[in-house]
Amino acid sequence: MVETHDFKTAPLPTVRRLPVYLAILRDLHERGTEQVSATYIATELGLESIQVRKDLAHTGIVGKPGVGFTIVDLIEKIEAFLGWDNTTDAFLVGAGSLGTALLGYTGFKRYGLNIAAAFDADPEKVGQSIHGKRVLPMEKLGDLTGRMHIHMAILTVPAEAAQGVADTLVAAGIRAIWNFTAVSLKVPPQVIVQNTELSSELAVLSVMLAEARRKSLHSHPPSC
Amino acid sequence: MVETHDFKTAPLPTVRRLPVYLAILRDLHERGTEQVSATYIATELGLESIQVRKDLAHTGIVGKPGVGFTIVDLIEKIEAFLGWDNTTDAFLVGAGSLGTALLGYTGFKRYGLNIAAAFDADPEKVGQSIHGKRVLPMEKLGDLTGRMHIHMAILTVPAEAAQGVADTLVAAGIRAIWNFTAVSLKVPPQVIVQNTELSSELAVLSVMLAEARRKSLHSHPPSC
Repeated sequence: MVETHDFKTAPLPTVRRLPVYLAILRDLHERGTEQVSATYIATELGLESIQVRKDLAHTGIVGKPGVGFTIVDLIEKIEAFLGWDNTTDAFLVGAGSLGTALLGYTGFKRYGLNIAAAFDADPEKVGQSIHGKRVLPMEKLGDLTGRMHIHMAILTVPAEAAQGVADTLVAAGIRAIWNFTAVSLKVPPQVIVQNTELSSELAVLSVMLAEARRKSLHSHPPSC
Repeated sequence: MVETHDFKTAPLPTVRRLPVYLAILRDLHERGTEQVSATYIATELGLESIQVRKDLAHTGIVGKPGVGFTIVDLIEKIEAFLGWDNTTDAFLVGAGSLGTALLGYTGFKRYGLNIAAAFDADPEKVGQSIHGKRVLPMEKLGDLTGRMHIHMAILTVPAEAAQGVADTLVAAGIRAIWNFTAVSLKVPPQVIVQNTELSSELAVLSVMLAEARRKSLHSHPPSC
C-alpha cells in the first residue's frame, strides 16, 4: 500500500500538467494515432522531454525505448491517476451568470466531473432547469449534500454570500471547494479550496494593458 | 503626468482585490445603500481594514472620517482605475465547449469586456451564431484583429493549436491574451498573458480530494 500512496502524491506542477498531456493524447487518439513519444508531447507544449517523462512516470506507465507509449494505455493511466475514470458528483451553488455558463460547459464530463444539481437563493430561479440541471433552493443545500454523499462543490455565489455558503457546505461534509468567488474562504484544514477568480484575472489584464499602452504612447513614437 | 503614472501602477494584489470590492459596492448600491466604510468591506471579505483603505487609496478616492465613502463615487473611481468604465473589445478564439460557455457568460459586460466576435477552425461552426456572437473562420483572424484595432484576445483553442494562434494574434497587434489553454505561451515581452486553466485546477482538486479520502480511510475510523 505504501507504493500506491507514494505514487499518488505527485508534485502539484505534475498534477497540473497531466490534464494537458491528456488533452493532446485524446486528440491524437481521435485522429487515429496509436503511439506517442515523450519528446513529441514535450515539443507540442514547449516543455523539456525529461520533464514529460518524469511526469508520466508518476502514473505508473512504462514506455518502450525507441517506440514510446501506447496512447490508449497512457490515457487510461492518466485518467486513473487523476481519478477521472470515475465520475465525481458536485453541487454548483449560485446560478447567476457565471454559474449558468459553467452549467452549460460540456467539458467537465471529460474531467470526470458531473454537476448533480444547482442551488440558488433567488425564488424565481428555484425550480427552473438551466442547461438541463435543476435549480434547488438554498435551504436544501446542507441536507442534500450529506444525504447524496457529495464531497465537491463549485461556488459561484456573490462575494458577500460566499463564506456563509462555504460554512454550510463544510458542515454538511463537503471536502473540496472550487471557489469562483473572490473571497478568501476560511475553512478547516481538511477542506481543500481551489481558487479561480475570473474578474480579478481580467482586472490584472486590463490594468497591465492600459499601462503598456500608456508607456508605449509616452516613450516611443507610434511604430506604424 | 507622473502622478497619474504612479497612481496607475498599483501592486498586483491590490489590482486583484479591487473587482471584489466593486462587486460588494454594486450590490450595496442596488440595495439602496449610499455610504460604506472600509471596515465594513474588510469584515465582509475577511481582510484587515487598513488593507482595504490602502487599496482604495490607489484609485484616488478620499473618504470622510467617521462617514466613509460615498458608494457611487467609489464605484466610479474603481471602474475608472480598472479601465472598466470604457468597453474593451476582445476576440474569442476557439468556439468549443469552454469558448461557448464564455460566450454565454453575461458577466463580462460588468467588467467592461465585450467579445466582438468568435473564431473557429471548424467549417461547421463558422457562420453560426453562438449566444448572439458570429463565429468567423480562423483565416480572417489576423486581418480582422489589425483592422478592428482589437488588443485583447481570449484563447480557448485546443492545446496543440494554442501557440500557433498566439503567434498570429501577436503578429496582428494583440497585446493582452487571456489564456484558457494549458500551454505556456511564448510571446514577446510587450505582450501580457493571463493564464486561467480550468482542467489543471480541477486536477489539483481531484487528486487532493482522493488523497484526503484515502488518508482518512487509512488513519482514522469513520467519524459517523
